[in-house]
Amino acid sequence: MKVLYAQSGGVTSVINASAYGVLDEAKKAGLEVYVGIHGISGVLRENLLRINDIDIEGLKYTPSAAFGSCRRKLKNQEDINKLFEIFEKYEIEYFFYNGGNDSMDTAWRLHNEAQKRNFPLKVIGVPKTIDNDLPYTDHCPGYGSAAKYIATAMMEATLDLRSMYADSTRVFVMEIMGRHAGWLAAAAGLGWLNGIGPDIILFPEVVFNKERFLDKVDEKIRRKGYCSIAVSEGIKYEDGFFVADMGYTDSFGNRQLGGVGFTIAGMVRSELSLKTHVAIPDYLQRSGRHIASKTDVEEAEGVGREAVRLALSGVSGVMVTIERISNDPYKVEFKTVELNKVAEQTKYLPEDFHNEFEVTDKFIKYAKPLIEGEFFPPFKNGLPDYLIIEEVEQQ
Amino acid sequence: MKVLYAQSGGVTSVINASAYGVLDEAKKAGLEVYVGIHGISGVLRENLLRINDIDIEGLKYTPSAAFGSCRRKLKNQEDINKLFEIFEKYEIEYFFYNGGNDSMDTAWRLHNEAQKRNFPLKVIGVPKTIDNDLPYTDHCPGYGSAAKYIATAMMEATLDLRSMYADSTRVFVMEIMGRHAGWLAAAAGLGWLNGIGPDIILFPEVVFNKERFLDKVDEKIRRKGYCSIAVSEGIKYEDGFFVADMGYTDSFGNRQLGGVGFTIAGMVRSELSLKTHVAIPDYLQRSGRHIASKTDVEEAEGVGREAVRLALSGVSGVMVTIERISNDPYKVEFKTVELNKVAEQTKYLPEDFHNEFEVTDKFIKYAKPLIEGEFFPPFKNGLPDYLIIEEVEQQ
Repeated sequence: MKVLYAQSGGVTSVINASAYGVLDEAKKAGLEVYVGIHGISGVLRENLLRINDIDIEGLKYTPSAAFGSCRRKLKNQEDINKLFEIFEKYEIEYFFYNGGNDSMDTAWRLHNEAQKRNFPLKVIGVPKTIDNDLPYTDHCPGYGSAAKYIATAMMEATLDLRSMYADSTRVFVMEIMGRHAGWLAAAAGLGWLNGIGPDIILFPEVVFNKERFLDKVDEKIRRKGYCSIAVSEGIKYEDGFFVADMGYTDSFGNRQLGGVGFTIAGMVRSELSLKTHVAIPDYLQRSGRHIASKTDVEEAEGVGREAVRLALSGVSGVMVTIERISNDPYKVEFKTVELNKVAEQTKYLPEDFHNEFEVTDKFIKYAKPLIEGEFFPPFKNGLPDYLIIEEVEQQ
Repeated sequence: MKVLYAQSGGVTSVINASAYGVLDEAKKAGLEVYVGIHGISGVLRENLLRINDIDIEGLKYTPSAAFGSCRRKLKNQEDINKLFEIFEKYEIEYFFYNGGNDSMDTAWRLHNEAQKRNFPLKVIGVPKTIDNDLPYTDHCPGYGSAAKYIATAMMEATLDLRSMYADSTRVFVMEIMGRHAGWLAAAAGLGWLNGIGPDIILFPEVVFNKERFLDKVDEKIRRKGYCSIAVSEGIKYEDGFFVADMGYTDSFGNRQLGGVGFTIAGMVRSELSLKTHVAIPDYLQRSGRHIASKTDVEEAEGVGREAVRLALSGVSGVMVTIERISNDPYKVEFKTVELNKVAEQTKYLPEDFHNEFEVTDKFIKYAKPLIEGEFFPPFKNGLPDYLIIEEVEQQ
């Protein structure tokens, strides 16, 4: 009995902990295990790696998709037929797809096709996203570590600003990922748990009003001398236009966004005549494994193991979810949701988790357990010692 | 006998370790210790904090200038007279100024004035700069930790790019501080010690040639499928113009630079039709204490302690320097250089430390000991527990 695992979509700093969970649990069950290189795209090209003889311990510590990811959606029945040819050839009986909404859609279609063909394939979705916007789960593996990274970076940069504002930069802006939902922008607010954080957060869930924003900056400057701002890349004007709209769409039809941090800083500079600095961590916030949350790493591994246990018990067509049983002490249980329910839905930041420019205590209570605990990678030569799978690069 | 300590210039993630060294050593010697809030600007406003009864342990772990920094140069004799009034009023006999070139100039002028006045003041400069561009010292406190941050961020972001390049972003660009000298840009190359790093580094010491650059990107894309780029904010065209020149100067007459990362990515996108991502860590690279180098923290504390020992033994008018006695095992000794020799000089990246697009083994050998060792801050609530001095904020 053979297992196929693959990674998909935008990566996280702990997606490989899920890979480790799936692969280790499958190996322990005596199964032969393959990994698709670059997700379903690699599977379609028959680019599979047999991992049984590979030392996978380093997956626990390595950010981004160690086996390569992809953004490929299944285009048509031809793609699906090709996949089943490969499943048949390699005698794949279990397929684990580790990704977000789109990946769950792919997994659902494969589960359905298997049923239609009476093909003995169990399909389980393993959730991951730094955006934390998957429905039916309390939170997603990947979010806690990105949140910890963002909160830490915001604390540190705000301390820097606070050092310098007396006769230099007065306003610092950090641009944060999350085009539709404000979970990551909200995470910037967690620094206040330890006494320093952003003075203003701009959420994609709140219509951006330039005048109200500049008034708020001005108020903060008058009161404390400086103003630290976290801005989500996805903030919009009342008419629905992205503040950072570049004026064109990409090949998928998505509006191209660029550097909202600079747009916001430009407003502050020209309207309030204040010196600004802008940081755009970009990939750094989703690959910053060196400051991952222990809770997050453990849960990421946990959902991987749970996926294998479910499949071995005959379950198919579901994604593993996390249910919070208790907040203090923090305790979760793994549950499931049907794959088709997850696809193409977005879970926004609830209204009682934020107000216009700040997060609420309710959000802090929700997010704090998710960033707790440190789980540093091993270091060598003064730098993290990550696992690098050679097969991911083309020859 | 009283001591005055102040911080100046752009901050680092370990400047407070130097503060700790100075303040703890002075307290141990039974001295009464004051700190200038926001550097010499605060001293001029008589904004002094007596720290003898404050718990300063947290300084070892806190990034940026805990007591506030400034960019103020001494303008005229009036400033100097005012300072000596305050020195007299508070009976200051030792002054420690923790900063870069400009700060050493300020310290030198105060040392000279004291001699002229026969005023019993000992002045010692304590070096700090992430730019590593001070002369007469093997390296500067602050550089090792910024280098470790940059190398780690570059490794992690490159792993992210490597995950996604199969059908998404092919080129990642990270913009790095260091307007004149390429020490920080070079640090990005250290990731190759552990198997993953930038494919191209653009140094301010190398004239930027767009055609040669794009050819290099194209070559990397053909060979491995993706290209990760570290670019110094200070790269220039052959005619001396900054690539990121915004077209105007700031109030100090410096050319304003903005987002060279986006400029470079734009060239790649429009000329090679490749999807790009850009990160600009900005303040994050100089305040990222959560991933400081142990070597750096210890040396930062060490130069602070050495400054006090020197002053107590009657020395004045020098900056503490670091001399590398041995590279393997790494061993340094503290020495001194006259303050006036340091001011207004820049130490560039030596020619044998880099070639057109990469660092050399000689640089790697130089920089590796500086980033070695971890010295994590204490964590509380999942985040670093930094020391926040209330007096730094205006009321």
